[in-house]
Amino acid sequence: MTTSAKTLQLRSPYLIFVGDQEDETYIKTGLGLAYWCPDRVAGQLRLRPDAVGLAVPDMDLEAAHQAGVQSLVVGVAPVGGGISEDWWQLFIKAAGLGMDIVSGLHIRLAENDALRAAAQASGAALIDIRVPPRNIPVGSGRKRSGKRVLMVGTDCAVGKKYSALALHAALLEAGVKATFRATGQTGIMIAGEGMPIDAVVADFVSGAAELVSPDNDADHWDVIEGQGSLFHPGYAAVSLGLLHGSQPDAIVVCHDANRSVISGWEHYAVPGISECIDRHLRMGSLTNPAIRCVGVSVNTSGLPSAERPSYLAQLADETGLPCIDPLVDGCAQIAKLLSN
Amino acid sequence: MTTSAKTLQLRSPYLIFVGDQEDETYIKTGLGLAYWCPDRVAGQLRLRPDAVGLAVPDMDLEAAHQAGVQSLVVGVAPVGGGISEDWWQLFIKAAGLGMDIVSGLHIRLAENDALRAAAQASGAALIDIRVPPRNIPVGSGRKRSGKRVLMVGTDCAVGKKYSALALHAALLEAGVKATFRATGQTGIMIAGEGMPIDAVVADFVSGAAELVSPDNDADHWDVIEGQGSLFHPGYAAVSLGLLHGSQPDAIVVCHDANRSVISGWEHYAVPGISECIDRHLRMGSLTNPAIRCVGVSVNTSGLPSAERPSYLAQLADETGLPCIDPLVDGCAQIAKLLSN
Repeated sequence: MTTSAKTLQLRSPYLIFVGDQEDETYIKTGLGLAYWCPDRVAGQLRLRPDAVGLAVPDMDLEAAHQAGVQSLVVGVAPVGGGISEDWWQLFIKAAGLGMDIVSGLHIRLAENDALRAAAQASGAALIDIRVPPRNIPVGSGRKRSGKRVLMVGTDCAVGKKYSALALHAALLEAGVKATFRATGQTGIMIAGEGMPIDAVVADFVSGAAELVSPDNDADHWDVIEGQGSLFHPGYAAVSLGLLHGSQPDAIVVCHDANRSVISGWEHYAVPGISECIDRHLRMGSLTNPAIRCVGVSVNTSGLPSAERPSYLAQLADETGLPCIDPLVDGCAQIAKLLSN
Repeated sequence: MTTSAKTLQLRSPYLIFVGDQEDETYIKTGLGLAYWCPDRVAGQLRLRPDAVGLAVPDMDLEAAHQAGVQSLVVGVAPVGGGISEDWWQLFIKAAGLGMDIVSGLHIRLAENDALRAAAQASGAALIDIRVPPRNIPVGSGRKRSGKRVLMVGTDCAVGKKYSALALHAALLEAGVKATFRATGQTGIMIAGEGMPIDAVVADFVSGAAELVSPDNDADHWDVIEGQGSLFHPGYAAVSLGLLHGSQPDAIVVCHDANRSVISGWEHYAVPGISECIDRHLRMGSLTNPAIRCVGVSVNTSGLPSAERPSYLAQLADETGLPCIDPLVDGCAQIAKLLSN
């Protein structure tokens, strides 16, 4: 079971490339980075001074290079999905200066011959964060030291990444040693490392998850970003591999209060919270018999604001657990259960 | 959700390449093909007349070509894993004659430039059955017509493929319309089509499983080869994706009577049969609420022969289901439950 495999590793500080968009929805990745990991972000590169941007300094490539920037991170989604020639030229120049190029776009960076040549010449890396690292082993099931809490969900896109980041912040705030562990693209850019778990070949999913949260201090918590849902007819395999490989001591169930059917799979119902907890504890007990649920993290933004407190109170009654909206309440209550 | 994706498709008749081995363990794949799909096998090609072989006619490439052979199928594992130059020359000559080359070896056929050129010139296909087809969709969860029975297991390598083939034979024997559906390498060669499900990227496992058993007549049974185990710390993700995508109306639990711990993961116990049934029905009900268990297929070869009947009788008492050793008893009892 010895392996040299590890997660994707990104070098900071970053220069965030935000292009020339006029609409913030295209630079969601960049906005997430500026918000969640400001210490990793040196600046932004806009192609036009009036393009929409982040609240970080503007820099051109030379200034960024002088400032010690290690990676140009693509923080913008191209309209239509393709990469225009002026973008490629910029990436080539950055790679020539020795900056790693980090992209979550569908098109592979290494497919551009000139970019590949520039990176080879300077020693820069071309990092497609949709592409898993090589040599991922099959999951060993070996118990690792340290503690782990995994976000799980009643569906996809119910706030698992946000909940993990908020819980990580709350643990640090409470003086608990903790690390956010990323399993998706934006999370990997925020953490500076991680595993695109849904892109791993099925036989190696739990092995990939094991790499995400390695051995650690006995009182250290890894806060692991979840993916998919055990109740999703398309993505449950990813969720189960992540659950088994994470070996979580604790789970937090993430939910959208306005969601009654699986998004995009409307003939499938979202499970009840208690059923969701029960199913995860049963399945998770394979690799960690001590698994427990420590809270429910709900996106209540779709509820009338007057109804939110009673919704969460009723859920807390039903489950006997802290039930919070992380955006409104933060995750201190859940962090407290973990640090006890 | 429209897709042009389909399973791997092999053209028969086959010429089975068995090389120059002296030990039958190296030609297990070839022996399986000769036993399970004799109608697809035209002959064998040995490199030496005294090499170990199958009970099928010897043919050289020219004779096979004359006889209408469509595919040269590698039915032998090379000692050490590599392919020697004389093997490559043989594959190149076969491809030049228009035969598809079918291999389950780790090395990719298309990595040999001369072989690729020969195949391109003749229109032959190079089929690595470890490589999934392209454009597999995410699982839709859409209910398909026809009926499905999936082999599941308490562990890997407990006779799931054998059980599926035996049950398929028993259904045909009983006059029931049925098709064996393959999800692993040898199974794919036997069936002439299928999906190497464990090599599919995690996000697409259940979608790949959906392709394996498409819409069919209302009274037709697909008998689906299982993979891994929900109780395996390394491979459960594959098993869950296959369970969800198969949408089985029925499952058969496969087990080895001598197995108490997961093979190769000895710190994990094999589950009890009732627990295994219960877990699969719970998880499988997501995509088919009518899922039921119709039998337990046990490899009893590790038990003293005097103990076998009482072992199976006790299991039948416990589960209320037909419990059989397919090698000893066949699968008629289980087939009867399906055809009722």
